[in-house]
Amino acid sequence: MNILITSGGTSEKIDQVRSITNHSTGQLGKIISEQFLEAGFSVTLVTTPTAVQPKAHPRLTKVIIKDVAELQTVLEKETPTHQVLIHAMAVSDYSPVYMSGFQAVKEAANLEQFLQQTNQEPKISSEEDYQILFLKKNPKLISLVKTWNPDIRLIGFKLLVNVPQDQLLSVARASLEKNQAEMIVANDLSEIQDGKHRAYLVSDQDVQLAETKSDIAQKIYHHITNKG
Amino acid sequence: MNILITSGGTSEKIDQVRSITNHSTGQLGKIISEQFLEAGFSVTLVTTPTAVQPKAHPRLTKVIIKDVAELQTVLEKETPTHQVLIHAMAVSDYSPVYMSGFQAVKEAANLEQFLQQTNQEPKISSEEDYQILFLKKNPKLISLVKTWNPDIRLIGFKLLVNVPQDQLLSVARASLEKNQAEMIVANDLSEIQDGKHRAYLVSDQDVQLAETKSDIAQKIYHHITNKG
Repeated sequence: MNILITSGGTSEKIDQVRSITNHSTGQLGKIISEQFLEAGFSVTLVTTPTAVQPKAHPRLTKVIIKDVAELQTVLEKETPTHQVLIHAMAVSDYSPVYMSGFQAVKEAANLEQFLQQTNQEPKISSEEDYQILFLKKNPKLISLVKTWNPDIRLIGFKLLVNVPQDQLLSVARASLEKNQAEMIVANDLSEIQDGKHRAYLVSDQDVQLAETKSDIAQKIYHHITNKG
Repeated sequence: MNILITSGGTSEKIDQVRSITNHSTGQLGKIISEQFLEAGFSVTLVTTPTAVQPKAHPRLTKVIIKDVAELQTVLEKETPTHQVLIHAMAVSDYSPVYMSGFQAVKEAANLEQFLQQTNQEPKISSEEDYQILFLKKNPKLISLVKTWNPDIRLIGFKLLVNVPQDQLLSVARASLEKNQAEMIVANDLSEIQDGKHRAYLVSDQDVQLAETKSDIAQKIYHHITNKG
């Protein structure tokens, strides 16, 4: 069984020196990768340049990507040859389209025109006190996974911040159904600190509670191997 | 002589999971730190979480910061007890103020109102195809250094992208004068790759050309110690 794992956080370029980055240390994806490698599986880890990386291993293939467009290319290529995708990467929802000084936007007759523009300068500069950045929604890659490989077993992740537990679980259940996942690992940033990492592993059958990254990795591993 | 060095790139939070990040590996600041440590100086290195770090050393003090506000606090505290500041950090020019869906901005009678708003959600979500991020200019910390310590010897950096050499040099000379620096290290991102790092070390007296990060570090070191 070939396991495809994503970890780290994507970055979307504003210009050559600035990006919008989704934070993720990559620590959880590293631990999950190690869990499957130790058990004898082959792992392809798609990760980002600043994420922590597992040590080199004969059955580990690493693919480094930066942004959602690169991630899409890699997932479209890799999903057909893998039986499981554990999609732990923090993926950018939006990408920069155009950055402008405040005055130009304020004086414009309509704002749609800015959605068609692109910055020509490799480093956007401005003397103005305020700038405005227009952003466009990225494709939701998790919803495309089954179109690339209908048979792949999909484990998704959902990170929210400071929400009640019932909201976290209902968002996870909606994602489970919408993306045809067999498990969504739902976690709240406020419950990830000091070595603890609380997560709810939501499937059609049940909800398992995990309290650390190792615990999450082990529960995912048992889920995959017991039903594989 | 106590040497204060900054390296890495700052990040400004959009919300709890996203930031705008200025790219910098921190490699040059690491090499400059090592150059001064090996020569017997005490070094305070102000750097960022993902920047590469010099090895621990009895005369090295590290201070980790994330954003411009934290950098300002640290520099204001540290500059009075240091004789030299080598300010190699890539510092964010702008910080997020407020993020909105496109429709709300389009329908607003005036755009200034958004500059007074702050997002209440710890993770900003939207179903809209487009979002708009309002940004505010950060204080230019390099211009404040001499107000905190008029006697500190200041080495600044200027990074541009794909500009003619005469433009790079004239921007460096303007920064030299404006910030009362004794040297500005001017470089172009297009000339930093594959182990090469071309830079022009611009002072009132002359312009020195360096071709690698080690070369830049050595020329800064000789400049500081020959005139110290």
